[in-house]
Amino acid sequence: MEVKYRYLDNSSITRMDERVLEAMKPYFFEKYAIPTSETGYSMGIEAREALEDSRNYLANYIGAGEGELIFTSGSSESSNAAIKGAAIAQKNKKGNHLIVSKIEDFPVLNSFKSLEKQGYEVSYLDVDEYGMVDPETIQKLIKPETSLVSVQHANQEIGTIQDIKTIAEICNEKNVLLHTDATHTFTKLPLDLHEIKADMVTISAHTLHGPSGIGALYLKKGTPFNKYLDGGFQEFNKRGGLENIPGAVGFKKAVELTSSEENDKFIQMRDHLMQRVLNEIPHTTLNGHPTERIPQNANITFDYVEGESITLHLDMRGFAVSTGSACFSRSLQASHVILGIGGDPERAHGSLRITFGRFNSMDDVGAMADALNEIVSKLREISAIGTQ
Amino acid sequence: MEVKYRYLDNSSITRMDERVLEAMKPYFFEKYAIPTSETGYSMGIEAREALEDSRNYLANYIGAGEGELIFTSGSSESSNAAIKGAAIAQKNKKGNHLIVSKIEDFPVLNSFKSLEKQGYEVSYLDVDEYGMVDPETIQKLIKPETSLVSVQHANQEIGTIQDIKTIAEICNEKNVLLHTDATHTFTKLPLDLHEIKADMVTISAHTLHGPSGIGALYLKKGTPFNKYLDGGFQEFNKRGGLENIPGAVGFKKAVELTSSEENDKFIQMRDHLMQRVLNEIPHTTLNGHPTERIPQNANITFDYVEGESITLHLDMRGFAVSTGSACFSRSLQASHVILGIGGDPERAHGSLRITFGRFNSMDDVGAMADALNEIVSKLREISAIGTQ
Repeated sequence: MEVKYRYLDNSSITRMDERVLEAMKPYFFEKYAIPTSETGYSMGIEAREALEDSRNYLANYIGAGEGELIFTSGSSESSNAAIKGAAIAQKNKKGNHLIVSKIEDFPVLNSFKSLEKQGYEVSYLDVDEYGMVDPETIQKLIKPETSLVSVQHANQEIGTIQDIKTIAEICNEKNVLLHTDATHTFTKLPLDLHEIKADMVTISAHTLHGPSGIGALYLKKGTPFNKYLDGGFQEFNKRGGLENIPGAVGFKKAVELTSSEENDKFIQMRDHLMQRVLNEIPHTTLNGHPTERIPQNANITFDYVEGESITLHLDMRGFAVSTGSACFSRSLQASHVILGIGGDPERAHGSLRITFGRFNSMDDVGAMADALNEIVSKLREISAIGTQ
Repeated sequence: MEVKYRYLDNSSITRMDERVLEAMKPYFFEKYAIPTSETGYSMGIEAREALEDSRNYLANYIGAGEGELIFTSGSSESSNAAIKGAAIAQKNKKGNHLIVSKIEDFPVLNSFKSLEKQGYEVSYLDVDEYGMVDPETIQKLIKPETSLVSVQHANQEIGTIQDIKTIAEICNEKNVLLHTDATHTFTKLPLDLHEIKADMVTISAHTLHGPSGIGALYLKKGTPFNKYLDGGFQEFNKRGGLENIPGAVGFKKAVELTSSEENDKFIQMRDHLMQRVLNEIPHTTLNGHPTERIPQNANITFDYVEGESITLHLDMRGFAVSTGSACFSRSLQASHVILGIGGDPERAHGSLRITFGRFNSMDDVGAMADALNEIVSKLREISAIGTQ
């Protein structure tokens, strides 16, 4: 069956922009040498210049200084490296107490769980009904042995934006490192490290129509860090392994192609969909904060319906969205995010995560709202429950 | 200056084959969803099928069974994951003694050094003048607390092939895990896991005209393994992080494009170059084994000349090779491989690593031998030393 997709879940992975591939091509076929050759052959120097140009562009974009941005294989590696790297480096100096929010994405959350198994003490932060962390709770939890706090910039499923500026101020004042996963906010919300004084920030290209397999980690100068990926002296001796030059070049290009106008378009699409669905379809609940949410995300629970039944019907009509109930479908668990904001498993299983990308239009939004009206009403009829 | 390169150091990174990019394209632009969606949208299922198809192809290629091959971001991650994953998983059960050869590539060697800092006991294996590990030494070094041995399939700089079959038999008999880094032998030498009974094998696409940023790890069923990259349930719950579908598809395509005929061509080019240079240029020494070496590699020391001066002159004539003296030029250290085979820093600094790839011809080999004759003689004249 040929399906022309109109909505894509770009929280997870986005369609690459053709212009990104065009930018990468010379580094597949013409300038593909190892970039670390400062002497030797000129192709190696060209490759190195491309790598450093991409690095400088991304560093400037977030207000990072020289030597503060390292490339990685993606947001998962960035978060693993930051969390494990900083925790291990500080274990004997500062202490082994760590703080993390309950609704982090799996690479963050499971890095903490892995450290917990190795003997670290981890405090898991509760969030309110919108998914917000209370900065004051962090202030109270920090003790002399606390070495690291990790709170995401915004949530991967429900889109809630944290008050990361205040959290950073608290951590700075208490002399505790702060890591923030900005995978879902990067280029969508301003991130100026002169304003938000985080020590480590995870970013990635896969959420912004860039290539898979490339991400970066902001690592503030002087941050205690135990190298995660051992290898050669690449990336200021902070990350071994051959550099992915086409990936770095594609990452830069992907960021260049984003704009505040595009983000405004996302907000319009998001708000229009939320308004139509919440007004027109009974027994629906918005998950996440009504206003403090990222431009490209809507997340709605439809009572008395399985989210997966909706996605199947949407798929047949050319809309690709995901359920909030299982970030990775092989897990049959209910979303830890929906449970974290006080939802029960039913609310989790009836939820839909809709993400807007560059290749969607306002027409798509209208068509999807129409489709949802029909599908949900039909499914409720069949199940004959809940609509009273 | 426009330089048309004729020789490329494909030990480090190879020019991508256009056919690889063509195979990857649909997964950038049409089938780019997360592959873990077993329910939901059909694009996710297509992506998953592509991932599993690539996985099965690569697994079959080396004789791995179902669930025994996981994709990674490259050989560095594969080796870090294997070594750290197996060492940590066995620390309290089997023991903390590890064995590794002295001439391993940096991701392997430095993973062991990192574990050593964390309290593991590491034995570093000497090699002979050709770079060969004596399997008997391993047999003698293994003690009840030994949990892991790592010996490469062949060396990254001097190309020497190890007797990995015998080493695997010893490890199996002694009930000790064996990891082997096959980055530089994969598709160049047969690797049948029914024959060579290793427990973990590192492979990568970057050495065979495939994409950067994708590799794989063979992980034999039942191997004690502590997950290295925490995240979701991907890759049989052995490696978190979004799957790189275009990368996996490109990896498969790159392997499909290799052939034994091509390997024979590499051997012819290698032997012709070695013969001409060693016969025609005085004061030259072959580094590595004269016959037990990988098809695509030659490594020669030119006495009384800096390897870096030669590479600069070769570069101007369109030949890209690297020195054996500094795998990563930011390191000013002499090659640990040349030192490992008994060379002094001078021998290391005067050595040249030449790697043959798909896009080289026999004509290139002749031209390069001519160029080397001229360049080396000129450089020796200038320095006015050594030629007597």
